[in-house]
Amino acid sequence: MIKDQLVKCLSALRQQGSLVHSITNYVVMNNTANALLAIGASPIMAHSHSEIDEMVSISGALVVNIGTLDEYWVKSMELAIGKARELNKPWILDPVGAGATSFRNAMLKKLIDLHAPTVIRGNASEIMALANMHSKTKGVDSIHQSNEAVEAARLLSKSTGSVVCVSGEVDFVIKGNRMISIENGHSLMPKVTGMGCTATALVGAFCAANPEIPFEATAAAMVTMGIAGEIAAEISNGPGSLQVNFIDALYQFSPEIMLEEMKLTEHYE
Amino acid sequence: MIKDQLVKCLSALRQQGSLVHSITNYVVMNNTANALLAIGASPIMAHSHSEIDEMVSISGALVVNIGTLDEYWVKSMELAIGKARELNKPWILDPVGAGATSFRNAMLKKLIDLHAPTVIRGNASEIMALANMHSKTKGVDSIHQSNEAVEAARLLSKSTGSVVCVSGEVDFVIKGNRMISIENGHSLMPKVTGMGCTATALVGAFCAANPEIPFEATAAAMVTMGIAGEIAAEISNGPGSLQVNFIDALYQFSPEIMLEEMKLTEHYE
Amino acid sequence: MIKDQLVKCLSALRQQGSLVHSITNYVVMNNTANALLAIGASPIMAHSHSEIDEMVSISGALVVNIGTLDEYWVKSMELAIGKARELNKPWILDPVGAGATSFRNAMLKKLIDLHAPTVIRGNASEIMALANMHSKTKGVDSIHQSNEAVEAARLLSKSTGSVVCVSGEVDFVIKGNRMISIENGHSLMPKVTGMGCTATALVGAFCAANPEIPFEATAAAMVTMGIAGEIAAEISNGPGSLQVNFIDALYQFSPEIMLEEMKLTEHYE
Repeated sequence: MIKDQLVKCLSALRQQGSLVHSITNYVVMNNTANALLAIGASPIMAHSHSEIDEMVSISGALVVNIGTLDEYWVKSMELAIGKARELNKPWILDPVGAGATSFRNAMLKKLIDLHAPTVIRGNASEIMALANMHSKTKGVDSIHQSNEAVEAARLLSKSTGSVVCVSGEVDFVIKGNRMISIENGHSLMPKVTGMGCTATALVGAFCAANPEIPFEATAAAMVTMGIAGEIAAEISNGPGSLQVNFIDALYQFSPEIMLEEMKLTEHYE
Repeated sequence: MIKDQLVKCLSALRQQGSLVHSITNYVVMNNTANALLAIGASPIMAHSHSEIDEMVSISGALVVNIGTLDEYWVKSMELAIGKARELNKPWILDPVGAGATSFRNAMLKKLIDLHAPTVIRGNASEIMALANMHSKTKGVDSIHQSNEAVEAARLLSKSTGSVVCVSGEVDFVIKGNRMISIENGHSLMPKVTGMGCTATALVGAFCAANPEIPFEATAAAMVTMGIAGEIAAEISNGPGSLQVNFIDALYQFSPEIMLEEMKLTEHYE
Repeated sequence: MIKDQLVKCLSALRQQGSLVHSITNYVVMNNTANALLAIGASPIMAHSHSEIDEMVSISGALVVNIGTLDEYWVKSMELAIGKARELNKPWILDPVGAGATSFRNAMLKKLIDLHAPTVIRGNASEIMALANMHSKTKGVDSIHQSNEAVEAARLLSKSTGSVVCVSGEVDFVIKGNRMISIENGHSLMPKVTGMGCTATALVGAFCAANPEIPFEATAAAMVTMGIAGEIAAEISNGPGSLQVNFIDALYQFSPEIMLEEMKLTEHYE
């Protein structure tokens, strides 16, 4: 049942070709745009205060990633989130490096307070930092396993109303009392920079095509990431070729592959 | 005859190793630089107001791409175009997302009015937007076929004096009453982000080496793009590997391959 | 003896997983981050004035690359270097395009005067420009052979106290009267944009893990670059695949490969 819903999320994305507006970090822009194109969505990347409103207006979802934030870009994010709220469009937050600096923490609080994200996707350290669980962050890479962050994610979801996704060896997608765990993926994936950012962008694409069911859309995006990573890893010699093969795998992805390969469990509190 | 001229444009580029100054968007900078190196040119990317003048002075051509423009970068573009005008160097415009926002449209008008570009290269939607033909733009991807934009391109070329190139399934290169259509290329190419931006960068490289004949130089660049894309697509499993193989194909490109593979037609009004 | 020291530098990096803070250019951020991850380090890229201090504090080394500098980013670099000085952390300078514009030269002087870099790594033209030897620079690519810059590098090292590395067909690592030359590498490497920037980032990673011996750490980084480039070039069809295979080769790199393949000579003045 849930598996069929996830497959429908993919079919909807493939049919509609979601337009996703990403305000993201410099490191991953190329990969993010290519991942969106490969899965069947269309990327927009624009940050000028003078055109944010119009860009959000023509998009199906907004993705905000604070990886290389500065003062100008934070203002871009605020304007975009304000417009997404006004137009009732899904917006997805990637809290890169949450907990690493007080500036990052303050800006994250500001953005979330402005308008609760439809979905928050981060690694365990980031989600724990966001939930104020005194996590120590090691830069932008996680020092916690994803299952350590489940309780934090639940708290965060309940306080914000957002779908919260903790990615890691096992991915958890949480909304209030609902939880899905996903065991797809490959250990080589974290050796490619920005794989988490790509996951967040895919969440944006799936939410744009399935705005009424962000919980299922997020799970579908994470399953897609994981399976494409598995397929790519099988023919890769390291993270360089994985990055390339992963885009090819997204491009060749299909509802049939998704249904056959997904390793997903529903949990009830 | 025209085919021989295009081959000579490539030979000139290979001999001279054009230095191309790109003020371009964050998404494609790496690919653009690698494409320029692979074809035999040298990339410069610099945008600080404090050094634009000197960078334009040492370059053979200027490429301006508004993909991720903001207020600071528009000023960089204005300074660079002013210097290119003063030194009579070719400058090439990539009007990414023309028609998507009023800011983009106003900035494009400002830049073109400052000094007509030597060449404008865009997709059908962008060229139609520039020519004020009330095109609806879907973000940065085209929703029109390139042949729909031929009339717009002619008008734009006549009003600006620029060579206008509309890229798509068929590429059109237009200057006043002259037109060349090019049927090289592969349907997988638009699934790689920034392939159009790469095309514009190559136009810059060919114009730097052939400043007296920008019409032929532009056609040579588009033929090069198309053939390299065909060669790359034959050994690629998707857009990830296409992006990699395309750079290899540019590197291995030669006058012989160009002459043998180019599919080009001259048209007379 | 020296070879064993270099191998130990790699082992230390692999064990400690250095955290490297890079303030670098837009063109190479993705490659730089992937190279750091592949060799076993963790990348941080952050430039906001509001968080530079905290980012330097949690990092093992600071890499400053002026490739696409502007006024805001220069201030970021100044703040970061000031903090590195305060905390006595190694900082590595990549003087991209030194000599190309007076702005670049002035900013480089400012940064070096603020606090002498632990290591400076550049191509021959850049090092000669830094040493005021009236080098003509062709954009960001070198027009000099690396051995022409040895004298300049020696002067620069003696005046700053920095380890100076000149990379090229032969790499030279110089500190005062000590010099190591390295003959690893492949002629295809300069056709990939940002290979020099990657080298500098690896120097940062090796210095973070070996802060007491920056001379040896720099040589270890350059040997690693060169050997990984050789391995990658053997299975590559051009610069596109080289970029990918190079990351894979870094990932599969080992003390054994290093010891077997390194071509290194010590020189005494």
